[in-house]
Amino acid sequence: MHKYENISAPVIKRLPRYYRFLGELMDNGITRISSKELSAKMGLTASQIRQDLNCFGGFGQQGYGYSVEGLYNEIGHILGLDHSYRTILIGAGNLGKAVATHMSFEKRGFKLVGIFDNDKSKVGSVIRDIAVTDLDDLEDFCKDNAADVAIFCVPKYAVASIADRLYKLGIRNFWNFSHYDLSVRYDDIIVENVHLNDSLMILCYKISDAHDEPENDQRNNKS
Amino acid sequence: MHKYENISAPVIKRLPRYYRFLGELMDNGITRISSKELSAKMGLTASQIRQDLNCFGGFGQQGYGYSVEGLYNEIGHILGLDHSYRTILIGAGNLGKAVATHMSFEKRGFKLVGIFDNDKSKVGSVIRDIAVTDLDDLEDFCKDNAADVAIFCVPKYAVASIADRLYKLGIRNFWNFSHYDLSVRYDDIIVENVHLNDSLMILCYKISDAHDEPENDQRNNKS
Repeated sequence: MHKYENISAPVIKRLPRYYRFLGELMDNGITRISSKELSAKMGLTASQIRQDLNCFGGFGQQGYGYSVEGLYNEIGHILGLDHSYRTILIGAGNLGKAVATHMSFEKRGFKLVGIFDNDKSKVGSVIRDIAVTDLDDLEDFCKDNAADVAIFCVPKYAVASIADRLYKLGIRNFWNFSHYDLSVRYDDIIVENVHLNDSLMILCYKISDAHDEPENDQRNNKS
Repeated sequence: MHKYENISAPVIKRLPRYYRFLGELMDNGITRISSKELSAKMGLTASQIRQDLNCFGGFGQQGYGYSVEGLYNEIGHILGLDHSYRTILIGAGNLGKAVATHMSFEKRGFKLVGIFDNDKSKVGSVIRDIAVTDLDDLEDFCKDNAADVAIFCVPKYAVASIADRLYKLGIRNFWNFSHYDLSVRYDDIIVENVHLNDSLMILCYKISDAHDEPENDQRNNKS
């Protein structure tokens, strides 16, 4: 049985942010913090924070605030960051290269063990001390190096066939930057999507909605 | 007054996905689709889709389904994608380069007009037909080229001072890839965050929670 099965999805979604803030506090040598101080830093209400942190024991003492390191470690445990899931990256283009070089996988519970591309000119080039492997060798590589997680940084049209190969290899966990909806294709996989185009459209909505231009309304009235 | 002020945030969040799917249907020459067909493609229930689309007029006719192009254009209007917000990108590293080359800004309501970096070795290099400008020239550039939106692809420690400069220049809209929480610093700005580390931690949680290893529980019991 899991200790934290009572934590709601919205609280889970906030945990990475708590984890980042608490990490900064530790870097700054701060050992205890009150929910009021934390709320000021994070732009949440103190009661919201107390509610969230009470979901998993709290670590708060009346008048003493929270143990920064205690909370940090506990949230890390809850997120499972002390794992080291063996991860392969599919796609060594601009986005794949950015993800490979930009992310601190080890601190987030993952270990990048392979990078693949079907572009022969990229094969052999080294990114983050990993030589890019020919996508044709995916099966051989995965037989020799069991992988738990695959990251998709390839165009949408390329995803389905590669996803089928990875699924056959037993990989069920995906960090998906493509706009292919993997969870529609497979119902027994775990997917976390990063849909940059969707995020950009949401920004466009927020800006347009806030400015609410006259021509926008004329256009809407016409439609 | 805005025509669509009754649309709830969760519906708004689903609109980009609808928009993508409808765009594909148009590419495939499909002119009408039933909520049942759309639900099968999108992994939502037909009633969920009917509820969502009814929020803004529906475009559905009993027995005829939805007009694909009508819905596509309407959702595009709601999202404000027929704008062309003048956008600058701060940071021409791996991530900035990936964002600049990877995103179809024009189709999402934005126009990339400038790219900035403080690394002199990057200044002058051309990304997506735009020469990288020295960050020192940000003020001069923005006086000559009004910008509506800034994209942050710089490390967290660099954000605050650049954000202050952009704020002074009147920029209030941000697409933020850094882990700096801009909305805590300013309360009158529009921010859409892409926090890749948070997304990776959520994936780690989903995997750990699903597998729920024994040693995980032992560890939790110890804590």
